[in-house]
Amino acid sequence: MSEVLRLGLVQMRMRTDPEANLHAALDGIREAAAQGAEVICLPELFRSPYFCKTESAEPFALAEPVPGPTTERLASVTAALDVVVIASLFERRARGLFHNTAAVLDGAAGYVGKYRKMHIPDDPLYYEKFYFAPGDLGFRTWKTSKGTLGVLICWDQWYPEAARLTALQGAEVLFYPTAIGWHPSEKAEFGTAQREAWVTMQRAHAIANGCYVVAVNRTGFEPVMLDDLDAEREGRGIEFWGSSFVVAPDGTVLAQAPENEAAVLVAEVPLGAIDEQRTGWPFLRDRRVDAYEGLSARFLD
Amino acid sequence: MSEVLRLGLVQMRMRTDPEANLHAALDGIREAAAQGAEVICLPELFRSPYFCKTESAEPFALAEPVPGPTTERLASVTAALDVVVIASLFERRARGLFHNTAAVLDGAAGYVGKYRKMHIPDDPLYYEKFYFAPGDLGFRTWKTSKGTLGVLICWDQWYPEAARLTALQGAEVLFYPTAIGWHPSEKAEFGTAQREAWVTMQRAHAIANGCYVVAVNRTGFEPVMLDDLDAEREGRGIEFWGSSFVVAPDGTVLAQAPENEAAVLVAEVPLGAIDEQRTGWPFLRDRRVDAYEGLSARFLD
Repeated sequence: MSEVLRLGLVQMRMRTDPEANLHAALDGIREAAAQGAEVICLPELFRSPYFCKTESAEPFALAEPVPGPTTERLASVTAALDVVVIASLFERRARGLFHNTAAVLDGAAGYVGKYRKMHIPDDPLYYEKFYFAPGDLGFRTWKTSKGTLGVLICWDQWYPEAARLTALQGAEVLFYPTAIGWHPSEKAEFGTAQREAWVTMQRAHAIANGCYVVAVNRTGFEPVMLDDLDAEREGRGIEFWGSSFVVAPDGTVLAQAPENEAAVLVAEVPLGAIDEQRTGWPFLRDRRVDAYEGLSARFLD
Repeated sequence: MSEVLRLGLVQMRMRTDPEANLHAALDGIREAAAQGAEVICLPELFRSPYFCKTESAEPFALAEPVPGPTTERLASVTAALDVVVIASLFERRARGLFHNTAAVLDGAAGYVGKYRKMHIPDDPLYYEKFYFAPGDLGFRTWKTSKGTLGVLICWDQWYPEAARLTALQGAEVLFYPTAIGWHPSEKAEFGTAQREAWVTMQRAHAIANGCYVVAVNRTGFEPVMLDDLDAEREGRGIEFWGSSFVVAPDGTVLAQAPENEAAVLVAEVPLGAIDEQRTGWPFLRDRRVDAYEGLSARFLD
């Protein structure tokens, strides 16, 4: 099979101004498309610094309807370039009700749907449960003009259930817009193992499901408080680790962006490799679907 | 927490004679115990060459009840050494009904239960569906005198569902007796990616579930036909890749055996690392158990 898909990853370093980030994203999309990318993914919550480092009412002002102003501006670009874009946005669903959402835009059709992050973290500097209601649209896959694509978001990446449920809908590629980095105080001792765990999990999703996996992260240090000029020197913030990557169905990392720079990465992937992997190692055939009901329990004690 | 568990892995090169393999296994258990191991795991189907390379009636003569003669002989050793042993056996359940089964033996108590392989492969040279009925005991974890242990077998290792369902029962360590190797004709092109996929999947089980994972493989070349003296030179068989390993809850490979030799590996692991990993990265907390019912479908088309 000679069918190929060209995947574009836009790894960004965020600025404070949402408009500047949108411009950088649009530039990244254009650059990826110029390199041949047909499906282009942006990092999680690409319009702003990662605001979940504190719990504050202020960031809610950043939220917007989905579809809404940002998807409209992206749609004019997807139409002009004939590309699919996966865009992670802070969704305002109703007064006081918000989601961490990814929109899918497909060429001239523009906005075609959204996924609302199902697994919401809450950890030091990642206080997402304060901002986002858990998704209620389930796990989703879209048949776009470029391929059948599944979309998940960041913390979802740690859940084999999420990857499986998306792949079972026919996704040829799983996309994970992401915002993950180091606590500077932990980096020396745990940094390598943490980033390697992140890559390992997503390689495993590719292997277990015999599909491609794409993770698109942000990069750069972001302080907890924007006006804290000593934050970086004294480690009060998150050092996002970039390293966005593409994994093949056999678990091989095909391409990886650098750690510390904004980057546009384009990878051409043969879709026939999905058939080859799944027929060579036919895991989907042998799933014991009669014996998995316990997966719906919190714990089996 | 200072609680530790000492894990023993007995990587074996099989001989034709089942009695010789049992002796080698007993020697390996004694050696592991002498090095301090408290829980010791043998490779899959350790009493014989891997007979599933062909479909033939002859190997059924190797099968035995579980518990049965082999568990009796192992029990005298577990009692004498006060160790837990996980032993993979060819189980004869009834006339013409067989399973790929792992027995758990616990010190003086001897045989305490068994797991019947749930996911059965069927691929060139791994014709297991001919020999083994799929397991019907579900996924299992035992509270042994040494720790809470989950047991799975080889092909199960590719299924995140299996690891999860075992871990949800409280397993601190997931053990995978295994028989995996290269088709010699594929080794040059795919060998590295295949073995790396195998390690990656099990590292991911450790990360996703925040527990230890142990894989115990056999090593050495085994011909398809025992009387084929040119088999190894001409590549008619399986080159089992050894490389048995222990993974920590953060996904780090703590210890790994060589590729080409029988080996006894002992790793001392702190159980407190399970708490640390699960509280630092609290994946079990955020599982969307309301949204996983689709996992019981073959495919969501």
